[in-house]
Amino acid sequence: MVMNVRGYAAHSAESPLGLFGFTRRDPRANDVVIEILYCGVCHSDIHNVRNDWGNAKHPMVPGHEIIGRVVQVGGQVTRFKLGDHVGVGCMVDSCQHCKACGRGLEQYCENGNTLTYNDVDPHDGTPTYGGYSERIVVSDKFVVKVPDGLDLAGAAPLLCAGITTWSPLRHWKVGRGSEVAVVGLGGLGHMALKLAKALGAKVTLFSRSPGKDEDARRLGADRVVISTDPLQMAEVHGRFDLIIDTVPYVHDLNPYVDTLALDGALVLVGYLGPLDAMLNTVPLVLGRKSVAGSVIGGIAETQEMLDFCGQHGITADTETIGIQSINEAYERMLRSDVKYRFVIDMASLHV
Amino acid sequence: MVMNVRGYAAHSAESPLGLFGFTRRDPRANDVVIEILYCGVCHSDIHNVRNDWGNAKHPMVPGHEIIGRVVQVGGQVTRFKLGDHVGVGCMVDSCQHCKACGRGLEQYCENGNTLTYNDVDPHDGTPTYGGYSERIVVSDKFVVKVPDGLDLAGAAPLLCAGITTWSPLRHWKVGRGSEVAVVGLGGLGHMALKLAKALGAKVTLFSRSPGKDEDARRLGADRVVISTDPLQMAEVHGRFDLIIDTVPYVHDLNPYVDTLALDGALVLVGYLGPLDAMLNTVPLVLGRKSVAGSVIGGIAETQEMLDFCGQHGITADTETIGIQSINEAYERMLRSDVKYRFVIDMASLHV
Repeated sequence: MVMNVRGYAAHSAESPLGLFGFTRRDPRANDVVIEILYCGVCHSDIHNVRNDWGNAKHPMVPGHEIIGRVVQVGGQVTRFKLGDHVGVGCMVDSCQHCKACGRGLEQYCENGNTLTYNDVDPHDGTPTYGGYSERIVVSDKFVVKVPDGLDLAGAAPLLCAGITTWSPLRHWKVGRGSEVAVVGLGGLGHMALKLAKALGAKVTLFSRSPGKDEDARRLGADRVVISTDPLQMAEVHGRFDLIIDTVPYVHDLNPYVDTLALDGALVLVGYLGPLDAMLNTVPLVLGRKSVAGSVIGGIAETQEMLDFCGQHGITADTETIGIQSINEAYERMLRSDVKYRFVIDMASLHV
Repeated sequence: MVMNVRGYAAHSAESPLGLFGFTRRDPRANDVVIEILYCGVCHSDIHNVRNDWGNAKHPMVPGHEIIGRVVQVGGQVTRFKLGDHVGVGCMVDSCQHCKACGRGLEQYCENGNTLTYNDVDPHDGTPTYGGYSERIVVSDKFVVKVPDGLDLAGAAPLLCAGITTWSPLRHWKVGRGSEVAVVGLGGLGHMALKLAKALGAKVTLFSRSPGKDEDARRLGADRVVISTDPLQMAEVHGRFDLIIDTVPYVHDLNPYVDTLALDGALVLVGYLGPLDAMLNTVPLVLGRKSVAGSVIGGIAETQEMLDFCGQHGITADTETIGIQSINEAYERMLRSDVKYRFVIDMASLHV
């Protein structure tokens, strides 16, 4: 017995998203059935839909910043009950027995985790469909609890933009006294500012253009540095313990590396590809600096991040849309015309 | 009252080294006067003499792998006495009050440390002259003790080649169970193999050419991987916690990065300059890997390394020469024709 579900899908890399009827599996013993209330719109949704990474499977129902309500649970599920507010992020499964999974780092599963959409369920071989839909069926291990009191629409982007910046902030041990800089002020960047600030760090935003000062300070920045101004860059030479680089396209890291302190790390979370200009090793060697990367986060640290956001009242800055506006939203995102994340109100599917 | 000293110097970037008479300062209250017994010959001696880095000060007396005997101490020196066997490495001073110096990391002194040669003494403005000489006068803070029983000629290269590989092995917490790889089998590389093995790691040598198997295994390698063979490289995909990259010229890091494990780091200790080919960020992001650098080591960790070598009977593999052969030795080093470090017997100055 499968369930019929409505959602929005792209039928090819060129076509706009439109209404799509499909089926979800009958819940297994460890599955949670979630009525989706909100789904954030991530830049990678556009990349996936348009086959920018060459692995698109159409029809594709995007969406991996999912907030919903539990409406059914399998017989072995004990951590969730009907009515619970829950979240689902970028992954819905992993091998659960490799070294990475053993450390709670399912995002680095050695046998390949299962993505929330544009992937294949390892148990029955069916395609995975994401959060631009009425309901989703997910193994309980990949469902997280939303703390009481957190705005549900604003919590949706925490499941990707939030955890993607939280995980390196925690892995590189940011806390009171840390000097953290964030490159880029978009969905990821604005979450990095909020989370780093709440962790007690002194926070700097690197921006290529002026005019972001007020917004950056409201979001948590103590300082804004215009990265195209050599004088401003010289002032922060050797300053930062951690730089979270959220820029999603190729860019020159060298000016940022110069602003790292001894043992500092620049962590790429937004760009996949070859680095241009060539990275200069001199500051790396003479200052024991690192260039590293990080992708989303594990389920346990996602829960930790949500709990932290609950305690500190942190959500994303969002603009709520109906699902019917999704194609227009994509165009606006490509123009960076959103502050700072679109979230789809899934009730709009029933309008 | 200054002391007259003989050494070998280059008078220009183009001239060979020859006998040179100069003066050392009268010891200050915290100075140690050392009769030099052995001095290792480092690749950077050639770079400095030939002005490859554009900052050569001639006449230049090279040498920063110094082993000697204490022959005089200043009035405030308590840690050393006449007859002690001691070592001096790449630095003879630092500011002693910055954050790096406070952590015992004088190699990263924020105010610039003073190099053993080709530099200027911060107190009296005189040039620093290195270990290709009879005697040296050094502040006691920059003098280390040579443990009893260690071969003195073999210990000389520990002061640069040894500490340069020891410092990243310790900083990245190598121990029993670690998987360590070393790129390049020269002065640095052969020390990295010995030290990593003695720390309990499983050790791999990456080599571009076959024929190094026997030597590598004798020095501590458990495995030799020919880095130009894609099949052998595929076999160690995702394997290493730490790669010590000793290659002193520009090279492509991407094949090595692919062999890092989750959270693994490739640490450059030999090459200063822009990286070519461009570094691909995909494995960094999807495996939380790092590319980093490291330079020599602090005085406290140099002492720790010497003590460790004393306990484990570790010295460099050396070929001892008279100072009169130094120019020929440089030519042989440029052809990689030394296993694995030339050491000058300073008694030859008196022949």
